[in-house]
Amino acid sequence: MKRWKITIEYNGAPFVGWQAQDNQLSVQGAIETAIEKFCGQFIRIQAAGRTDTGVHARGQVAHFDLDYGDRKLEGFELAKAINAHLRPHPVTVLHAEEVDPEFNARFSTKNKLYRYRIINRWTPLAIDEGFAWHFKRPLDAEAMHDAAQVLIGHHDFTSFRDSECQAKTPMRTLDRLDITRHGDEVILETEGKSFLHHQVRNMVGTLSLVGEGKWAKSDIKTVLDARDRTKAGITAPACGLYLMRIDY
Amino acid sequence: MKRWKITIEYNGAPFVGWQAQDNQLSVQGAIETAIEKFCGQFIRIQAAGRTDTGVHARGQVAHFDLDYGDRKLEGFELAKAINAHLRPHPVTVLHAEEVDPEFNARFSTKNKLYRYRIINRWTPLAIDEGFAWHFKRPLDAEAMHDAAQVLIGHHDFTSFRDSECQAKTPMRTLDRLDITRHGDEVILETEGKSFLHHQVRNMVGTLSLVGEGKWAKSDIKTVLDARDRTKAGITAPACGLYLMRIDY
Repeated sequence: MKRWKITIEYNGAPFVGWQAQDNQLSVQGAIETAIEKFCGQFIRIQAAGRTDTGVHARGQVAHFDLDYGDRKLEGFELAKAINAHLRPHPVTVLHAEEVDPEFNARFSTKNKLYRYRIINRWTPLAIDEGFAWHFKRPLDAEAMHDAAQVLIGHHDFTSFRDSECQAKTPMRTLDRLDITRHGDEVILETEGKSFLHHQVRNMVGTLSLVGEGKWAKSDIKTVLDARDRTKAGITAPACGLYLMRIDY
Repeated sequence: MKRWKITIEYNGAPFVGWQAQDNQLSVQGAIETAIEKFCGQFIRIQAAGRTDTGVHARGQVAHFDLDYGDRKLEGFELAKAINAHLRPHPVTVLHAEEVDPEFNARFSTKNKLYRYRIINRWTPLAIDEGFAWHFKRPLDAEAMHDAAQVLIGHHDFTSFRDSECQAKTPMRTLDRLDITRHGDEVILETEGKSFLHHQVRNMVGTLSLVGEGKWAKSDIKTVLDARDRTKAGITAPACGLYLMRIDY
């Protein structure tokens, strides 16, 4: 029995999200089915974190244990075999490597990087539809970045936590939250060891109020201190969110 | 009668290309139909250049003449009206402005910028499928960039010209061709006043041979001097090509 770590890319659009659910297409289910087709065994895989319906990943990580007998199996062979059985689903194993049996995709996480893409213009999206949040009113990305710095550090993020979040504590440490503009695209990048359910999307939705000039930086501080989800802004759409990288 | 200049974005995937063709979905046809629905007249529009089947645009430009009587029409109103009738096609008018009657989208062009996206890895594309060329063998982007500099300047580009190209002369001036790597993405950007049919895709396909190490920089020079299409490499796929900007 050997433990494998796989790095995964997926387009979240056709999936109900990461987590396997009966009779619904999940990323986890697609990969588990592909592994079963390859090795004949049903093997449960464990991801670094569940992503919601429609959320994309460029670097999700999962682990699983595989008994492949005495036969030698290289990482690229495993990735290739799973990928062959994943078609036509938009999921790809980018990398597979044997890891220490102690490695745990969820609990060994040191850092996560998320990116959120906003296309900020009033005209419809022809190319980026489904791959970014289409925000029509002008956003001041510099003001959003400045206000976002209030959220850096160790805080109670209850105001940015989904009501169905199952984490034991709302305390999280946010290490980075940068917002930059590139033409009509506004890109948010954020890093931390772990995030609450909907935390990134709730931070984006709330910061968009600052970008529109409706809120000031001090309002972000007030909302954070309120520890009340109803005080913050909307949950930004899933299609703009990308789980980019997980460090161990 | 007033002359309008429109800047257009489109996802090339569902179209036979820019040019209107009977009973087939073209970008030009989609826009002409939308304009007709808006103003009740069929108006022929003229683009800066035709794009092939599957080629994308972030900044195509076209012009047309519209008789809107004495009523006032702002650019954003015209863009909004055309866009409303363009749904659900992935085409968007980004900008519309009244221009001098002498303006001609095709003949007033001073410079065009094309971008070509390559995803360079052996695993399938989950997110970028249809939006980049999937090139599996490793590419040396620096070597490609270095070799590409041979093509800069005023040359006979017969070796990079499609056999069906209708331009009167194969002479063109290439002002810029830069190739850079960003993770597993290799991006080519090229600028010039005008390009021959398939010129960018033929240059990309040929430079990929240098990227693979099969060809040297001197081979690009030899092929350019040969003035023979059969000496150059393949035509890179349409889905990686984006018409980014046209300057007047």
